[in-house]
Amino acid sequence: MATHKLLLLAGDGIGPEVMAEVKHVIGFLDKQGIASFAIEEDLVGGSAYDAHGVAISDAAMERAKAADAILLGAVGGPKWANVPYEARPEAGLLRLRKDLGLFANLRPALCYPALADASSLKREVVEGLDILIVRELTGGVYFGEPKTILDLGNGQRRAIDTQVYDTYEIDRIGRVAFELARTRRNKVTSSEKHNVMRSGVLWKETITALHAKDYKDVELEHQLADSLAMQLVRWPKQFDVIVTDNLFGDILSDIASMLTGSLGMLPSASLGALDEATGKRPAMYEPVHGSAPDIAGRGIANPIAMIGSLGMALRYSFGLGEVADKIEEAIAAVLASGKRTGDIRTPGGPVIGTADMGAAIVEEL
Amino acid sequence: MATHKLLLLAGDGIGPEVMAEVKHVIGFLDKQGIASFAIEEDLVGGSAYDAHGVAISDAAMERAKAADAILLGAVGGPKWANVPYEARPEAGLLRLRKDLGLFANLRPALCYPALADASSLKREVVEGLDILIVRELTGGVYFGEPKTILDLGNGQRRAIDTQVYDTYEIDRIGRVAFELARTRRNKVTSSEKHNVMRSGVLWKETITALHAKDYKDVELEHQLADSLAMQLVRWPKQFDVIVTDNLFGDILSDIASMLTGSLGMLPSASLGALDEATGKRPAMYEPVHGSAPDIAGRGIANPIAMIGSLGMALRYSFGLGEVADKIEEAIAAVLASGKRTGDIRTPGGPVIGTADMGAAIVEEL
Ligand SMILES: CC(C)[C@H](C(=O)O)[C@@H](O)C(=O)O
Ligand SMILES: CC(C)[C@H](C(=O)O)[C@@H](O)C(=O)O
Repeated sequence: MATHKLLLLAGDGIGPEVMAEVKHVIGFLDKQGIASFAIEEDLVGGSAYDAHGVAISDAAMERAKAADAILLGAVGGPKWANVPYEARPEAGLLRLRKDLGLFANLRPALCYPALADASSLKREVVEGLDILIVRELTGGVYFGEPKTILDLGNGQRRAIDTQVYDTYEIDRIGRVAFELARTRRNKVTSSEKHNVMRSGVLWKETITALHAKDYKDVELEHQLADSLAMQLVRWPKQFDVIVTDNLFGDILSDIASMLTGSLGMLPSASLGALDEATGKRPAMYEPVHGSAPDIAGRGIANPIAMIGSLGMALRYSFGLGEVADKIEEAIAAVLASGKRTGDIRTPGGPVIGTADMGAAIVEEL
Repeated sequence: MATHKLLLLAGDGIGPEVMAEVKHVIGFLDKQGIASFAIEEDLVGGSAYDAHGVAISDAAMERAKAADAILLGAVGGPKWANVPYEARPEAGLLRLRKDLGLFANLRPALCYPALADASSLKREVVEGLDILIVRELTGGVYFGEPKTILDLGNGQRRAIDTQVYDTYEIDRIGRVAFELARTRRNKVTSSEKHNVMRSGVLWKETITALHAKDYKDVELEHQLADSLAMQLVRWPKQFDVIVTDNLFGDILSDIASMLTGSLGMLPSASLGALDEATGKRPAMYEPVHGSAPDIAGRGIANPIAMIGSLGMALRYSFGLGEVADKIEEAIAAVLASGKRTGDIRTPGGPVIGTADMGAAIVEEL
């Protein structure tokens, strides 16, 4: 049996708490002989800053490059509000994404049957929802230069961020979206603001050309980002795969998360290009939720998004799709049994803590 | 009685249909001696392009500058998908905003009692909702330079858009938000992405400093734009006034519109700086909805957002707040009577067309 090299970066806030539950699941899979892992751990975000004065150390980056996959908890918190901009917790996450070339961020939004009443939306709007947001993750306004604040004198400053996209960046994320749509309901919705942004014009033209060239069998539609945000709230089941840029993807995926009952449910995968020589691709898996400093340390965080992220790692990095299925079924079964963490607002059974939710999922497995 | 100079720019798609109903309301106010108007009309958007080859003519811009207020319908449609970028319908709208200095876009989202069941959200989430989005409208990525597409050769192109904000731009929109909050529930939520954008850093610092200097009596909170999008869907009643930049404001206000039962309900005001000499400020009023080419010409569009925009003009440009109140009451009463246009999804009375809805509101007045 292959041994999978997994790097755990628990990070800040509730990161370590939810990562602890992933370790239980990993331990269980190991013990049962279902999969074999070589685990390393390191720091990222505020905890890395506290230890090393940077949001991720070079040593941790080396480990990240050597790993078959990375699991990341969450970064950030008010404690680091005043650290230098280059050393803020988010910089660790952004360096991982950029230096590992993790350009494709997959954010599924799935409404578990047991949670169809848990969101702020009506049951009929979200019941059975299964959409996938494919977000470009290494380009756009997150990384474009110039990115600076100039002092203009007289108490005036000028802040500049630059949205930049090259054809090849749009092309490769488009391919990911079309390929994934073929394994699903065969529809891609591409989103930008071509009516006010030049990057939107290039985005739309590139996706349209790619579709005409290689993916005519997939249904393609275009929606402006403002209109798509609205449609996600109005009638989300019209979508299958949504492909969009880094910034719009950030916002749209947070909206999508609200359709599922709680942000605490949603895993994500960030994938790089396939290395033809080794057959591997760099990959990082993390919950969509953040570090939730307000509830950190209280043992009440929902570990499902983190455990689901392990599931995505098994599926996309380790070729263990069947084990991933089992994990998803275990999560669904625990929710169906009525167990809830405090973030899930639905009449249900007892509200339990992080450790009990983790244990219940392992039990179900 | 003062005569108010009003320029009507009906625009494209359903624009002329909903503007026709505004004319009925204006005619009624005139006839009853409630207010007196001098009306001019001109073209904008695709219809201006068809007539003059530009999205707004210089002559129309002159009329816009001379008017006390402008009412705009909507611009755009598939017919003009392939016109040159500089002449696309949206360029007319953007020129009006920029050349008139309409930096403050007020987008109220109000859930009429009769429509608490009409949105995709649960009744308890939206009932009684009354929030105001204050969107910066003349800066940011909409106008920043460079804004271009470069040819890199080898079939590769590079698109660039630039997000730029100066201190004074953030300061003046912040003031508008704080002043309006004082007339409401005294709370401002400021939104940006300071964790990845330098403009977000400057935004947050400027708003924080302004608050400390002049508005300590108003409650201020900061929320990242992704998180705010989520909170708008989760529990929107936590907000009073939201202040944000041009692009985030575009998206967030479209989300907010979904909380009110239909995009067809929402008016907006775009205001410039007060001219101390004349005591006037440039102002344009328009529905948040677009030109809806799919239903244009069928007489089924909802005229409420357009009529509500006239109401905002009466309130903010003409000092006729009481007449504006009357219009809002008339709209609420017509909705309470069960009348609906087709865009409003709620069990209610008969579905009626644009003209009948307009007539019902005039009748109620
Ligand atoms: C933490 C932050 C930098 C990050 C982002 O904006 O990408 C987060 O919101 C996300 O969506 O992963
Ligand atoms: C038509 C378009 C240019 C415009 C915008 O993006 O500002 C519209 O979406 C709006 O919100 O007024």
